[in-house]
Amino acid sequence: MRFNSELMEQKHFGQEEVRILEEIILHRRDVRGNRFLPTPVSNEILEKILLAGINGPSVGFSQPWEFVVIRDQEVKRRVRESFNAENEKASGLFDNEKSIKYRQIKLEGIEESALNLAVFYKPSAGVVLGQTSMKEVGLYSVVCAIQNMWLMARALNIGIGWVSILDPEKVKQILDAPQENQLVAYLCLGYVNEFLDRPELEILEWEKKKLLSQVVIHEKYTKPK
Amino acid sequence: MRFNSELMEQKHFGQEEVRILEEIILHRRDVRGNRFLPTPVSNEILEKILLAGINGPSVGFSQPWEFVVIRDQEVKRRVRESFNAENEKASGLFDNEKSIKYRQIKLEGIEESALNLAVFYKPSAGVVLGQTSMKEVGLYSVVCAIQNMWLMARALNIGIGWVSILDPEKVKQILDAPQENQLVAYLCLGYVNEFLDRPELEILEWEKKKLLSQVVIHEKYTKPK
Repeated sequence: MRFNSELMEQKHFGQEEVRILEEIILHRRDVRGNRFLPTPVSNEILEKILLAGINGPSVGFSQPWEFVVIRDQEVKRRVRESFNAENEKASGLFDNEKSIKYRQIKLEGIEESALNLAVFYKPSAGVVLGQTSMKEVGLYSVVCAIQNMWLMARALNIGIGWVSILDPEKVKQILDAPQENQLVAYLCLGYVNEFLDRPELEILEWEKKKLLSQVVIHEKYTKPK
Repeated sequence: MRFNSELMEQKHFGQEEVRILEEIILHRRDVRGNRFLPTPVSNEILEKILLAGINGPSVGFSQPWEFVVIRDQEVKRRVRESFNAENEKASGLFDNEKSIKYRQIKLEGIEESALNLAVFYKPSAGVVLGQTSMKEVGLYSVVCAIQNMWLMARALNIGIGWVSILDPEKVKQILDAPQENQLVAYLCLGYVNEFLDRPELEILEWEKKKLLSQVVIHEKYTKPK
């Protein structure tokens, strides 16, 4: 049994498509408030980004995502307060030198960006095909949607910043989110004055870029004796 | 202070790049064993896919990923055994009609695909910038890398199937993985006889495709009274 017509054209991509995808991947950045411009993002452009999201993969085709589009400055301000509280706690966790550096880095663009996107995992009501042994793959489906949106935004010359220094329960309260929903990401979206040529934390020498040889293992790990 | 040179060219993408990314996103499929061809995947092609992964975003630039490349048929066979056991349990969880349908669907291509890729989250030793309030964003970074690889594979006309019906601890044992590593995904990679024109579970009417209007909320949820 074949599910699609014999006549259906099989899409075959060439070197040009590979090159363009590589460029989009390499030029994608995590953008913070000091880069965002106030230029509005049109509904048409936002829709392109969201469509990239809902065409991501999901376990058992469960599509367990919900996206809250936020333009209201008062909502943003309240989310920013949660960031401030969590960030204050965080800055005390690093040792001296890193703590000083940490406080100098702008880590969010909640109020500066044209719009915010709260992305939730909404658990399915019934049993989900493929989610019976590893429950967490439902959350991972939502993350795949986010990465699709991140790349599409970059292709549209729009920056995204992922703010994770937040109390997810506070954000749920602010947005009146249903109890069963789980906040996966809080994203800031907007046009930018520039995309840095490398990740900012690499430029600042906060962390070193890892090479493939450091993270690829062949066949199996060698057990430490 | 500017981190990159004023002379650095700002990459500006146009409509053609957006169109190509859309096509790659829309033609990406989750591929199972009945589609994979035995054609080998060269190291050069595999490297392109892995490079897409390690150029994904990661919280605090922690790059908390490890990739185990598996071609050994004996390792694959043992992982397949874990799938069989978990799948047998899973098939009993659906009600009658869906249970019958479930047993008819081929859900993995572990032994049929040219290579398997076990993708792990490796927790960082120190405090990670951005991971202080929501620990799970470390895992999410690894998922972003996976989605980058999935798209790059599709652009290279290579199929990927994500197998989540596995006992992650069994897989860790088989691969001698370090205790602290967490299995995020087990992927099957290879050339295919065809990419379906829509997700297989949509074609089979297992689940319906959701529209944007069903998953997008504006400003905040309306509280149920």
